[in-house]
Amino acid sequence: MRLTYIASALVALCLVTSAGDDPLPSWNDGPSKQAITAFVARVTREGSPERVAPEQRIAVFDNDGTLWSEQPLYFQFMFVADRVKALAPQHPEWKEKEPFKSLLAGDFKGALAGGEQAVVELMAATHAGMTTEEFSALVLDWTANAKHPRFQRPYTECVFQPMLELLAYLRANGFKTFIVSGGGVEFMRPWAEKVYGIPPEQVVGSRGKLRFEVRDGKPVLVKLPEVDLVDDKEGKAIGIQQQIGRRPLMAFGNSDGDLQMLQWTTAGQGPRFALLVHHTDAEREWAYDRPSSIGQLDKGLEEAKVKGWTLVDMQKEWKRIYPFDKP
Amino acid sequence: MRLTYIASALVALCLVTSAGDDPLPSWNDGPSKQAITAFVARVTREGSPERVAPEQRIAVFDNDGTLWSEQPLYFQFMFVADRVKALAPQHPEWKEKEPFKSLLAGDFKGALAGGEQAVVELMAATHAGMTTEEFSALVLDWTANAKHPRFQRPYTECVFQPMLELLAYLRANGFKTFIVSGGGVEFMRPWAEKVYGIPPEQVVGSRGKLRFEVRDGKPVLVKLPEVDLVDDKEGKAIGIQQQIGRRPLMAFGNSDGDLQMLQWTTAGQGPRFALLVHHTDAEREWAYDRPSSIGQLDKGLEEAKVKGWTLVDMQKEWKRIYPFDKP
Repeated sequence: MRLTYIASALVALCLVTSAGDDPLPSWNDGPSKQAITAFVARVTREGSPERVAPEQRIAVFDNDGTLWSEQPLYFQFMFVADRVKALAPQHPEWKEKEPFKSLLAGDFKGALAGGEQAVVELMAATHAGMTTEEFSALVLDWTANAKHPRFQRPYTECVFQPMLELLAYLRANGFKTFIVSGGGVEFMRPWAEKVYGIPPEQVVGSRGKLRFEVRDGKPVLVKLPEVDLVDDKEGKAIGIQQQIGRRPLMAFGNSDGDLQMLQWTTAGQGPRFALLVHHTDAEREWAYDRPSSIGQLDKGLEEAKVKGWTLVDMQKEWKRIYPFDKP
Repeated sequence: MRLTYIASALVALCLVTSAGDDPLPSWNDGPSKQAITAFVARVTREGSPERVAPEQRIAVFDNDGTLWSEQPLYFQFMFVADRVKALAPQHPEWKEKEPFKSLLAGDFKGALAGGEQAVVELMAATHAGMTTEEFSALVLDWTANAKHPRFQRPYTECVFQPMLELLAYLRANGFKTFIVSGGGVEFMRPWAEKVYGIPPEQVVGSRGKLRFEVRDGKPVLVKLPEVDLVDDKEGKAIGIQQQIGRRPLMAFGNSDGDLQMLQWTTAGQGPRFALLVHHTDAEREWAYDRPSSIGQLDKGLEEAKVKGWTLVDMQKEWKRIYPFDKP
């Protein structure tokens, strides 16, 4: 009996030690991994002159292109496209009306030719009018059943293994991890806790207006076709202030939409950390950063150089991309 | 040496045991205390059929009249009045212009005669145009120096001792405690962590719009004179959904402004808890609940009866009101 206890204690110890040896096993020992671990040590180690109190350890993460892929299109847009297909029989007029017509024909580029107006129309047609609970159920149904066109796996499996390790590593070091995404907050919350370990109250995102109503004697919140916050670019700093209310210590993004979030974070007093994921792996993921595409990274690359932000070369620095890749 | 260790261990143990015996020492053993502790046991005890996972243990608290007093006027209004006085030399026109004229003459009722429009004008004149950091510094300066007219103590000492104990008790039982107040979120965050143990990211409140700007090469967030959310009545359910993103398990309020928050909370599946603080103590605090006054509690009293919500009789159930009262 006693020996069994000692044996299990030893096993437990080994597990702890092995995890302790390398909390970021999917990161090669490159400059990004070194920068991350050096910064975390600097702000958390007992006796460090720059130690930051645990309650100030706020880390914010963009989602699309930072925590999961965003190609061939933002995943939320794939969800919207699936909703349009499901609703099309009730809307015969969509066959002749853009952006629905193109979308139903599988022409995503055509559907998005109308720019922001097209996106707003699609969101209104597919998200508005229902209650927050109905919407949440639709999202969960989609994440359980829809498959990514390239990997033929649920979208929630197309998340970056190195970033999952980074989230866990930061939390183990006393950080509170938040998502701050241009994506819809109601689209991310239903699955973010299970997939990223990030609870709903730590998800900041774009949001529509809501209306409180009593339906069948029960209070509900109805999604309205009006934008309340576009949590992108300047909106990310605003979303952080509105919902978190203190300046992050670390910020992680991948595109020019994250620029103001990184600027706002690093303008704080004392040590701050900013990182951009650079999509350089055409084989295992995608390689892109061109202006006027999804995930444009143009000003960000310039500013990262000038300010010494960490730039992750996915192709060189990540051993694995997805959890389903072989370790 | 060894004896000293044992002695301190014993002292520590006694402290723990004594706190463990009664986590709510300022509550008399009345129906409210019993309802609170019975509910917490029901949703947290190992083996309880209605046990709720720790991440679902969300408790929301109104602030004005629930966590601190709200008489003779909402404390934020006292702050605004002090700001108007401080800014008056730069605004000679205020001497002839309502609501400033009345306010400068010490006539609060007259200043508020203009209703919501008057409040918006006062907020715009005293809150807008400055950065969030400048505003935060003003609030902290005020909480350090201003004194409540009746008690001649800082406003942040005019908080309810029984509620401080309740906050700590719920946190010790795995709850995350949130403020959900009609007061300004930027007004509460600077001191809520120190006074209530509630961090900025767990404060939901009314908010104005913000603008991201670069001033002297540094990004700042500027407060605009436009309302973004009135976190009162229906707005409380909306604020909860926008910022917390899941339905609370317990909700605490004191007025009809909290009604929809309590309705939204108790409409969730499984066990839910709602409590209203009834201001019945004219001697130690104030006694009020009349329609069309601060802290109107009219519909709430009715609904509490019908739905079995807990109603705290301050006068009978609270041994102490403020931390500065003798225990």
